[in-house]
Amino acid sequence: MATYQAPQREIAFVLHDVLGAGRLSELPGFDEATPETFDSLIGQAAKLIEEKIAPLNASADAQGCRWQDGEVRVPDGMAQAYELYWRSGWVGLAADPDYGGQGLPYTLSKVVEEMLCSANCAFALYPGLTSSCYEAILACGSREQKKLYLPKLATGQWTGTMCMTEPQAGTDLAAVKTKAIPQADGSYRIDGGKIFITSGEHTMAENIVHFVLARLPDSPPSIKGLSTFIVPKFLPGAGGAPGQRNAAHCVSIEHKMGMHGSCTCTMRFDGARGFLVGAPNTGIQNMFVMMNLARIMVGFQGLGLCELATQNALRYALERRQGKAFDDAQTIIHHPDVRRMILTMKAVTEGARVMAYETALHVDLAHHHPDAEVREQAQDWVDLCTPLVKAYCTDMAFELGSLAVQVYGGHGYIRDHGIEQIVRDAKILALYEGTNGVQAMDLVRRKLMLHNGRLPQRFFAAVRAEGCAETPLGFIARPLRQAVDELERATHWLQESYKARPEDAGFAAADYLRAFALTYLGYNWLRMAKAAAASDNVTLRDTKLATAQFFAGRMLPLVPALCAILQQPAAEPMRLEDAALASAA
Amino acid sequence: MATYQAPQREIAFVLHDVLGAGRLSELPGFDEATPETFDSLIGQAAKLIEEKIAPLNASADAQGCRWQDGEVRVPDGMAQAYELYWRSGWVGLAADPDYGGQGLPYTLSKVVEEMLCSANCAFALYPGLTSSCYEAILACGSREQKKLYLPKLATGQWTGTMCMTEPQAGTDLAAVKTKAIPQADGSYRIDGGKIFITSGEHTMAENIVHFVLARLPDSPPSIKGLSTFIVPKFLPGAGGAPGQRNAAHCVSIEHKMGMHGSCTCTMRFDGARGFLVGAPNTGIQNMFVMMNLARIMVGFQGLGLCELATQNALRYALERRQGKAFDDAQTIIHHPDVRRMILTMKAVTEGARVMAYETALHVDLAHHHPDAEVREQAQDWVDLCTPLVKAYCTDMAFELGSLAVQVYGGHGYIRDHGIEQIVRDAKILALYEGTNGVQAMDLVRRKLMLHNGRLPQRFFAAVRAEGCAETPLGFIARPLRQAVDELERATHWLQESYKARPEDAGFAAADYLRAFALTYLGYNWLRMAKAAAASDNVTLRDTKLATAQFFAGRMLPLVPALCAILQQPAAEPMRLEDAALASAA
Repeated sequence: MATYQAPQREIAFVLHDVLGAGRLSELPGFDEATPETFDSLIGQAAKLIEEKIAPLNASADAQGCRWQDGEVRVPDGMAQAYELYWRSGWVGLAADPDYGGQGLPYTLSKVVEEMLCSANCAFALYPGLTSSCYEAILACGSREQKKLYLPKLATGQWTGTMCMTEPQAGTDLAAVKTKAIPQADGSYRIDGGKIFITSGEHTMAENIVHFVLARLPDSPPSIKGLSTFIVPKFLPGAGGAPGQRNAAHCVSIEHKMGMHGSCTCTMRFDGARGFLVGAPNTGIQNMFVMMNLARIMVGFQGLGLCELATQNALRYALERRQGKAFDDAQTIIHHPDVRRMILTMKAVTEGARVMAYETALHVDLAHHHPDAEVREQAQDWVDLCTPLVKAYCTDMAFELGSLAVQVYGGHGYIRDHGIEQIVRDAKILALYEGTNGVQAMDLVRRKLMLHNGRLPQRFFAAVRAEGCAETPLGFIARPLRQAVDELERATHWLQESYKARPEDAGFAAADYLRAFALTYLGYNWLRMAKAAAASDNVTLRDTKLATAQFFAGRMLPLVPALCAILQQPAAEPMRLEDAALASAA
Repeated sequence: MATYQAPQREIAFVLHDVLGAGRLSELPGFDEATPETFDSLIGQAAKLIEEKIAPLNASADAQGCRWQDGEVRVPDGMAQAYELYWRSGWVGLAADPDYGGQGLPYTLSKVVEEMLCSANCAFALYPGLTSSCYEAILACGSREQKKLYLPKLATGQWTGTMCMTEPQAGTDLAAVKTKAIPQADGSYRIDGGKIFITSGEHTMAENIVHFVLARLPDSPPSIKGLSTFIVPKFLPGAGGAPGQRNAAHCVSIEHKMGMHGSCTCTMRFDGARGFLVGAPNTGIQNMFVMMNLARIMVGFQGLGLCELATQNALRYALERRQGKAFDDAQTIIHHPDVRRMILTMKAVTEGARVMAYETALHVDLAHHHPDAEVREQAQDWVDLCTPLVKAYCTDMAFELGSLAVQVYGGHGYIRDHGIEQIVRDAKILALYEGTNGVQAMDLVRRKLMLHNGRLPQRFFAAVRAEGCAETPLGFIARPLRQAVDELERATHWLQESYKARPEDAGFAAADYLRAFALTYLGYNWLRMAKAAAASDNVTLRDTKLATAQFFAGRMLPLVPALCAILQQPAAEPMRLEDAALASAA
């Protein structure tokens, strides 16, 4: 059975020794966010998550959600666990104190989210989407809407959804057809169907707030004609308590590859009462406020599953006796190929953790730093790294899940061990909140182009400033320097070629994102090696240095190769006719 | 819903235009195996497989096998389909006519196996393990054993199993504990438990022949003390008909990630009656006769799933309308990142098909060619390429399954579409018949070392003989030349370093196998481009050339990068203490 123990020592190492998260306590309003507070709250969250949430992961997967007559029953134990979780204040950790939140840094909330996703990723979607809904209303709602809905969403007493996708409108939201007709009382009549709605229906919370993308009459038929609406499951009555049942119903749930503990609903809005959020026809902007944070959230889901895969594979490799290695040891961790897999998993998970945490830290800096220049720099980092965190962490969750199965051998394929569940749960992460292909296009088409290419230049400068090619850390500093040089060249090529030959850039995007993420991880491993070299903890020092060497020698050299590959012209494959391709289909 | 249409044009192109499989008809006994016979039989098999076997793939996955009181019920329709399949003669296609087989080339049987595995990989395991059992008894059985069992196994009237694994003995068969005690009548009393036994119990055939690895009393406690036994479910009576029920029982079945249509049984032998096959203590050799062919079979399972993933993703990408591409087209095949995924899938599947078919062709040559020198060369090719076919095709089945889900977007994650099933079914292929890590070690530790390194040298010579760097095919011939040069250098490094530092080679093995397979695919794409350039079929020519260019520019350049990476020393990571690693677990 897969088990989960929160990697508290590693989390503290990254937060404090590598990233200096203590500086958050110097920001206005965050004076309580000291390293001690971080460690203490992380410890409390870890205990609750390990003891109450993790044990439901396998049973929820086996049981799944069940739909009957419009109601959804979540797996046994989930409702009690959710009640415990929100009442303990974990949903509202970083929410605004004006709305019942605890006003702690976003970074801290993401650390807790990583742990929650390791323990039970399907469970994490209930508070996760709730936070997304909170963020969207916080950014775009009216004063009254905020007062009515945010205290319920901030705490998690009510849960939230994001209703965007329709059968014909997935990646392309321009095709959204759901209609919103203005009513005499200022509300809107919402008609239409939505699919793939996470947490669309359940009875774990007393109300559900749907945040719905729909089209006003006479709006442009394009992406610019969409607006956002609050559609509560129960219309709040006087005093805000859930009142009349709204005409927003779950007509079926999906049977999925994984994430069985999370209900994925097909929703019908049949003249449901909705309330416009923000100005008409600003729906896409309103959604993207939330969407960017949602993408980081999905990256943390990926990180959580990377950690789960890694710690279980390592634990098994240290215990499982099979054959005799070259050094006569009998546990499989002594077999070179098993050790190679374990080190790959450690190098990726620990390196990705620094990337994800640092991006979260920049969200806090971008929102709270008193200096506008620092805020701008921080926002640049967040904008650049959001697609990296989303796509890389989630691609790796799937790959590391697969490697964990490989370490377990045939036993990993058996459901009882809980390892194959990681692979099944992880796959959705590469698809929702924008497929990883969409993330790569966001990186190349938008993030490289903003402000004359300022975003990647700031990243390259930060990496180069870490320096130290001539120190004992040259073993990683040198290949990192080469990687960043090649990445910069590829970046210029993309920035140049994009205008003339957008298809070349489109073809290159996925490889470019991978090369960028690996370079970022190289930067992280250099900093981790530095921090570990200064540590008294011998085992920490030894494992960090050995893993940094592994990354430097076996993973970082892929960057120059990928950069050369991505600069190939795409004209030939793009010219290939549908008919020629179809003849093989 | 995933659908399957046998790629008959592509199969014929590879067999005839690329590999010249017509030469098989020049071998003694194969005069009927003309290209026309191949095409005609492939067409007949395709029809049966598409119409009768493929439709059961999704329903068998959803329903699964059920165990009750020692009996296993396979999913609805499977028994009827199996009956139809074996009675139509497809199981015995390449089996010896003396035992009721049709005596056609092994290559042809593998083509049919590819199609069967695309259509329904779980179904394919029933005839697949039967053929393995047939091969083992053919190679090692006594005259009486052959006469009694082979006619039933050759045709598939009875099915077979391979009973090797025990809980403590997976990769390491030295740990096998099942006992075989000689009895007065010359038979043996078999006692012990086996796990992960594919097709261990069912009622689709009137009998099941278990091929069991067990230990005689006083045998060495090592791998050299194992022997093989036939343990029939029903002991054949006079005349060979199934008689008394033997004490070989299925005590439970596994609930697995995928392959739900195939039963995976835990078997108990409680004083079962068994019959020694081959000499005492030659069990491992006896098993490996079958195991090598079983590994190629698993490679074909991988190829089958690669094809299924590729054709479904392509079909969907040609139909699905979403957004507008740079060229204003609305189907997603016009989005560069989708096209990149499709071309990756085509490049891998079509390239791997040539590798798998060519290896099968060499099995026929090694067995049937009149010239001993040719037989030796062919056997070298088979020995070298068996781990490549097994590991590369199966790793790719999982990766291409994942890419197919990615092309389908969120819809790919929903079970109804049948695409995520490919990922779940594929994962076992990388684990059974020796994990892919074991394949890589087999390649490096055995195949590179045999006969003074003769095996890879013969491969390099064949690739170089294809030449043509200065022709219009230089676009692929040049990077192929570089790849083979780098691969040869890495090969020499492994051959040298292995004796002194086996851990370096162990660490390098997986990357080396990947580099080798990519080089082989480069060789295949050069030959396919050549053959296509000579073709009248314009769409074939265009797609083959564009795909060859894609492979040459975007996949083949990984070979030099991998070769550089794998030659890194492994001393540091191997020295890392368990305690240091455990502190992070």
